[in-house]
Amino acid sequence: MFSKSEYERRLKGFQAILAQQEIEGALLVQRADTLYFTGTAQNLHLYIPRTGKPLLLVYRNMERVLAESPWEAFPLTGMSKLPELIMEHGHPLPKVMGLEYDVLPVANYLRYEKLFSQTKLMDISYPLRLFRAVKSAEEIARLEENGRVYAQLLEYASTVLRPGMTEIELEGLLEAKARTLGHETMLRTRAFGFEFHFGGVVAGPQGAISGYFDGPVTGLGASYAHPLGPSHSPIQAGDMVMMDLVIAQEGYQADATRMLVIGEPSQKMAEAYQLSCEIQERARLALIPGRKTGDVYAELVDWVERETPYAGNFMGYGQNRVRFIGHGVGLELDELPTISKGAQEILAPGMTIAVEPKFIFPGEGAVGVEDTLVIEGEKGARFLTHAPKSILRV
Amino acid sequence: MFSKSEYERRLKGFQAILAQQEIEGALLVQRADTLYFTGTAQNLHLYIPRTGKPLLLVYRNMERVLAESPWEAFPLTGMSKLPELIMEHGHPLPKVMGLEYDVLPVANYLRYEKLFSQTKLMDISYPLRLFRAVKSAEEIARLEENGRVYAQLLEYASTVLRPGMTEIELEGLLEAKARTLGHETMLRTRAFGFEFHFGGVVAGPQGAISGYFDGPVTGLGASYAHPLGPSHSPIQAGDMVMMDLVIAQEGYQADATRMLVIGEPSQKMAEAYQLSCEIQERARLALIPGRKTGDVYAELVDWVERETPYAGNFMGYGQNRVRFIGHGVGLELDELPTISKGAQEILAPGMTIAVEPKFIFPGEGAVGVEDTLVIEGEKGARFLTHAPKSILRV
Repeated sequence: MFSKSEYERRLKGFQAILAQQEIEGALLVQRADTLYFTGTAQNLHLYIPRTGKPLLLVYRNMERVLAESPWEAFPLTGMSKLPELIMEHGHPLPKVMGLEYDVLPVANYLRYEKLFSQTKLMDISYPLRLFRAVKSAEEIARLEENGRVYAQLLEYASTVLRPGMTEIELEGLLEAKARTLGHETMLRTRAFGFEFHFGGVVAGPQGAISGYFDGPVTGLGASYAHPLGPSHSPIQAGDMVMMDLVIAQEGYQADATRMLVIGEPSQKMAEAYQLSCEIQERARLALIPGRKTGDVYAELVDWVERETPYAGNFMGYGQNRVRFIGHGVGLELDELPTISKGAQEILAPGMTIAVEPKFIFPGEGAVGVEDTLVIEGEKGARFLTHAPKSILRV
Repeated sequence: MFSKSEYERRLKGFQAILAQQEIEGALLVQRADTLYFTGTAQNLHLYIPRTGKPLLLVYRNMERVLAESPWEAFPLTGMSKLPELIMEHGHPLPKVMGLEYDVLPVANYLRYEKLFSQTKLMDISYPLRLFRAVKSAEEIARLEENGRVYAQLLEYASTVLRPGMTEIELEGLLEAKARTLGHETMLRTRAFGFEFHFGGVVAGPQGAISGYFDGPVTGLGASYAHPLGPSHSPIQAGDMVMMDLVIAQEGYQADATRMLVIGEPSQKMAEAYQLSCEIQERARLALIPGRKTGDVYAELVDWVERETPYAGNFMGYGQNRVRFIGHGVGLELDELPTISKGAQEILAPGMTIAVEPKFIFPGEGAVGVEDTLVIEGEKGARFLTHAPKSILRV
């Protein structure tokens, strides 16, 4: 858990945004958001007024909320009680109230619309996500812990990987091991329909199978019903094995990728992997405060097109190319900012971003590196995940 | 994958509902729903007109959609194209159109509202969920496959469980093993904020820790950020170990629970477990077509109150009791119907329900049994999961 001053910092920062946007209060219900402000992941409605203390209205479980959160909390017996509870605690009914339009289901929204019939509702999700993108030293330290787990898992992977093992089997062993190292199994994503679990351990040609997943490497998946990530296909000697994993502790998630191979990589794959590492280093140096993320993306893609022989394979090929190189990561796997085509976000110290330049070769597979970095100063971003960058030969 | 006639059956059944409700079409986007009607889990918008063929409008990945779905499919380059694509394929713009209000984010809804400005939008989620609750023979066969995996896992658990192992470690081993038996790792839930992964392997006193989870047993969880399921607490000799797992293959999920113990259970725990089995059998006999689920719930709770010494511990204790004994299960873990207080759904042949009577003793732990059953006829429901019902002594 974090210090009370950390939660106070978060509250004040968000209240400044409410003031700026002339919103009198925000009603938050999504778990990552409420956890961020309250320090508890129990079921509650969180009303954050423009000034004063946050109002925690708890469905379940009050006992845990009181043990975990630095704030006072009150029971909520039904949604219809929300307006009167807000007033009872000294707040006027807001003229304008912010909601999380990007995640809130329509059914819930329509109920709020009726309950707060005199209130103008508006979307607070983008400024809230942008605010959460900048992490404190305490949050960054937690992300860095996950980097240590990843490094241990990479070492472990090299001891269990053997030909004939399926992708899904290898990922299962890695996850079981990760749990003994502190990883907490459940992950959080934000975008509607974004389903993901632990990682993309994909090998050989499966690395180049395209799909709906909004990333460079989709994988075949366990079945047509879950068509991404590891599959029941066996790993062969010579396959490039991508170990893309998300490690979580206390809700904070870091994302990293390294490559393994049984035997030796082909010259082409080894070369493309080296290029990934070079692009990542160029990205690291370019990720400095004040720069626009879309500009960093364009600059890196330009370099790939000018200087490498595999521009047509960078982040996918043909129709299936994705137009980003990095994504924010923290309490959710798809946080702001993204280092993507046309993105307008301005980099700021404390933003944490997974940078994952990858090359995909149809019929052959995928190679690439990924690390979670934090934006710091003029000298470039700093790695939060650390593991040897050479291809691990087994 | 299913036969084309199965997808035709699903289409016709749902179209009958659209006709009944005087809705000219439904626009579906949630993955379990679109998978159900199309046989693919790729990213698409599915327009189901009241008559005629379904219209699959695909973002990504067309190649997989064409390989997996029995229906024709067309590319979708942007949401704004939806109205014209519907008309281009021979349908009038609907006067009334159904959407999945229970899962659809507000932001998406507001875009549809603008795009279909002459259309009355309405919630189709409840009739859709109720329709999906009744499974075909092919679907039931898939659920039964998962029962076989569970039985093998139970046997495996008895070979790896040892004192000092943490709950999260045991569950990790079970999941790794499950993958080698065909389990596909990712699960689907529907309710907003319902986070769940694989299972609730909880032992001893942790079984009685209350939380926000809408089930009888929450568990301590990995941390305050993920406060449900297995924890880093070590399992002790004499602890009742609850092995509540959800197994998934081709998207179909079955839910089952058995108990293990290192050594011998206390007499009280053994007795309460026996009662769980007896309640489950009473439930099985009561789950017959035509009955109202709320009536079955009331009848079972009455019996527990009249005939057992542990009524105060049934499905929780004090404030933390939950008011259900069973829940629908299939493509999602929280399907209709629920065997719960006041529930109005009428049982029909083909409904698949996880029945989980459990007793929770504060400071001691939780015991109970769970199986997935299918509603058939007058003789009661039929078990789809099968594993020995005795407490497994290790």
